[in-house]
Amino acid sequence: MMRFTKSQIEALPHLQKINLINSVGGYKSANLIGSKSKNGITNLAVFSSVTHYGSSPAILGFVVRPTTVLRNTYENLKETGFYTINSIFGSTLEDAHHTSAKYPKEISEFDVTSFSELYLEDFYAPYVKNAPIQLGMKFLEEYHIKANNTILVLGEIQNINIQEALVEKDLFVNLSHGNIAAINGLDGYTVPESTERFTYQRPK
Amino acid sequence: MMRFTKSQIEALPHLQKINLINSVGGYKSANLIGSKSKNGITNLAVFSSVTHYGSSPAILGFVVRPTTVLRNTYENLKETGFYTINSIFGSTLEDAHHTSAKYPKEISEFDVTSFSELYLEDFYAPYVKNAPIQLGMKFLEEYHIKANNTILVLGEIQNINIQEALVEKDLFVNLSHGNIAAINGLDGYTVPESTERFTYQRPK
Repeated sequence: MMRFTKSQIEALPHLQKINLINSVGGYKSANLIGSKSKNGITNLAVFSSVTHYGSSPAILGFVVRPTTVLRNTYENLKETGFYTINSIFGSTLEDAHHTSAKYPKEISEFDVTSFSELYLEDFYAPYVKNAPIQLGMKFLEEYHIKANNTILVLGEIQNINIQEALVEKDLFVNLSHGNIAAINGLDGYTVPESTERFTYQRPK
Repeated sequence: MMRFTKSQIEALPHLQKINLINSVGGYKSANLIGSKSKNGITNLAVFSSVTHYGSSPAILGFVVRPTTVLRNTYENLKETGFYTINSIFGSTLEDAHHTSAKYPKEISEFDVTSFSELYLEDFYAPYVKNAPIQLGMKFLEEYHIKANNTILVLGEIQNINIQEALVEKDLFVNLSHGNIAAINGLDGYTVPESTERFTYQRPK
């Protein structure tokens, strides 16, 4: 086993440190968050921090680092109240990763990638066309994390659009049936091929 | 596409609702959190909400639902200040999932599964022996989420123990080389076989 103590971690060169620390927590969700400013400029950005907070009401969170370009997403959703979460899938990994490039706010990532905007009913934020899972989200609460000046954004699911092939009888969504990706670290993507389900566990 | 509006989601039977909402955010990290009460009783519980908050300092978060048995983990880490995060790997999925059973606090999940406690130096909480990644964590901050009465627990990484075969030259940790699992929904587990890395992205 390789061992790193806290002081050894702190002393690592920047790139090694972010590679290591971004990987050790395990696989991360792979999503594109879509938003649109009040002025009508759309934004699309890859996020690996979408996390389940509760099912009733249906709440998902994600983390914003104020020092990065991903702040466009935060500004748009605070301005308008709405955003979308769209799963990243097999053939679009490279384009999805490209949304991490630091484009100025006037440029929409929809214009520099193969992703297309999809609007459904009167929902203000753009969904990603062809994404196997598309969630319409409404901003709910935010928490400023004192430890490192990040922001936890919580939103409530307003709409779910999902490919039928993914949905089992009990509404379990088999992500592997949509070639949905997971993220490893800062720049690694994997597309799991199958999932094994276990039963509800009781004490032996 | 199947569509669910907010009111349709709210009207779903409980099991369908938790299956659907636990899956739509994408793959989740698969970890066992180890802890030990002041009285010396150990606890081990599966968590799918471990999320990266920052690398410098190295901070990971996870979400506690006060109404579940997983509260043992929270009580122990608040009492003692320390816990461990251990990756779930290929041959142990069934035992890992079994730690979700609601055992009373006096019973250690280490005694009803094949997992063994590992103690390193003077770190109070037990690591999971043979887990490819073992993190020694110190409790840092907590945030009470008003929207649904959950708790976000943040901790700082104190120690990393990691199988050498996973670690690339730039300290990217290739999770697939350790047969590390990801979680799909409430009860689905997958072990991705390979990872593709992309370069740092700049505007075109």
